[in-house]
Amino acid sequence: MNVFIIGTGLMGGSIALDIQQVFEEAVLYGIDKSPLHLKKAKELGIVHHESSLEELPKATIVIMAIPVDTTVHVLPEILDAVNDQAVVIDMGSTKQQICEVIKNHPKRRNFLAAHPIAGTEFSGPQAAIRGLFQGKTNIICEVEKTAFKLQEKALSIFSKIGMRIRYMDPVSHDKHIAYVSHLSHISSFMLGKTVIEKEKNERDIFDMAGSGFESTVRLAKSSPAMWTPIFEQNKANVIETLEEYIGNLQKFKNLMQEDDFQAIYEEMESTNHIKNILNGIKI
Amino acid sequence: MNVFIIGTGLMGGSIALDIQQVFEEAVLYGIDKSPLHLKKAKELGIVHHESSLEELPKATIVIMAIPVDTTVHVLPEILDAVNDQAVVIDMGSTKQQICEVIKNHPKRRNFLAAHPIAGTEFSGPQAAIRGLFQGKTNIICEVEKTAFKLQEKALSIFSKIGMRIRYMDPVSHDKHIAYVSHLSHISSFMLGKTVIEKEKNERDIFDMAGSGFESTVRLAKSSPAMWTPIFEQNKANVIETLEEYIGNLQKFKNLMQEDDFQAIYEEMESTNHIKNILNGIKI
Repeated sequence: MNVFIIGTGLMGGSIALDIQQVFEEAVLYGIDKSPLHLKKAKELGIVHHESSLEELPKATIVIMAIPVDTTVHVLPEILDAVNDQAVVIDMGSTKQQICEVIKNHPKRRNFLAAHPIAGTEFSGPQAAIRGLFQGKTNIICEVEKTAFKLQEKALSIFSKIGMRIRYMDPVSHDKHIAYVSHLSHISSFMLGKTVIEKEKNERDIFDMAGSGFESTVRLAKSSPAMWTPIFEQNKANVIETLEEYIGNLQKFKNLMQEDDFQAIYEEMESTNHIKNILNGIKI
Repeated sequence: MNVFIIGTGLMGGSIALDIQQVFEEAVLYGIDKSPLHLKKAKELGIVHHESSLEELPKATIVIMAIPVDTTVHVLPEILDAVNDQAVVIDMGSTKQQICEVIKNHPKRRNFLAAHPIAGTEFSGPQAAIRGLFQGKTNIICEVEKTAFKLQEKALSIFSKIGMRIRYMDPVSHDKHIAYVSHLSHISSFMLGKTVIEKEKNERDIFDMAGSGFESTVRLAKSSPAMWTPIFEQNKANVIETLEEYIGNLQKFKNLMQEDDFQAIYEEMESTNHIKNILNGIKI
């Protein structure tokens, strides 16, 4: 079983480590636009071989874990290159453009659109960790367009590394994920920015900041190279979430300015309900 | 050593547990407006005795861990009631109004204004945990206005339970804390609200939400009873932070609308710098 990992960073590296653990026969090949990353990935035991797109015809499984704009760009040629029994899986945080670009590709049936809801705020091969996907949800789009045997092959991997599968159409995926993931990243980045701008003397920040601040700005450590194309591809949905978020913040500010602290209390109390939703995440 | 804990919830309960551990001779008395909370605090071993304001004259140390509006309201009578060797410490997240209200009190020297930067998103006696303050920063305001021996007494407690001390004037405290704590809470509450409003079908939220969402909305579980008076007392500073935060979000949205994703990239990249600041928190 020849598994090609395109993009040997946090996501690609982590799934490579898990695949090695559950499939002893798997031979891992790494492809990365950064020779340094690729070398590091081999050193860390993430892949067995440094490889390149020329070797793709021998792939059993190809996993793409690269920025979503690059995926849209290179996916058609990757499908061109693979053999007829190979399955190509992408792990991007947007699904609509990716599904669109290959919808008429002669090897559409060799592609499976996936979005494993997992990750950390770190990036690069050294951020790869075993068990990242254990118990996490993997959203699969347009499963009916993938050849049945290749679905089975891909799903057996996801299942063995501990993922739960949820099926969804790409339009719904991009709309919902804007709320529960993309908006969180922007809110965190802008919170970090606001505080950094204001607190030029950084001693004042880190002496006074507690775990609450740390938790809300954690995502502001995320990779701009990964996130910029996500926001670009999901522009309309993300702008909609931002408008609603800004509107809610504006309303909160207005209530404060009007000294309507009863309403402020009620805003917070009704949002406390998020406890139950978050408990759901942990199940 | 008679230690009175006024407010036997997360903060008061946690410090009571730590004090018991480091001062074997300490006798803990609990006062709480909720008889149920007080009973629970005794059951959990947080305090030894259920008590009331009438017993305050026998206090060696009084720790106030109640909403900041109630502190402003009752602190003068608590100072009236205590004996001349007692030290009254508050733990509120705002300091200006609290210092202001007792600045001419005949027992001003018996008061120490403190803000331990510690906590969780939970509340009530059952949320109290040992070791909550270990390695955390405690901000002390107007230390020079507290009698020297009483400063020593209070600081020996903070030091024994593992806190680092930072001195600051109340105006600066309230200004900086608006950025690194109060704004985080609002950003989190409004993020939770935005997502709940939109995602009426909650299955869509928790199936798709990952640890990133969980981390950014964690503070939206916080107690409205505790936070409403904090926002009220720190109104001017909080509104300023909100305006800057909304401005930054608006600017981000505009860049997206103008398809200036190079600028979006740069916004995120320059904020990545938050990594170093957060590493500072952990030192």
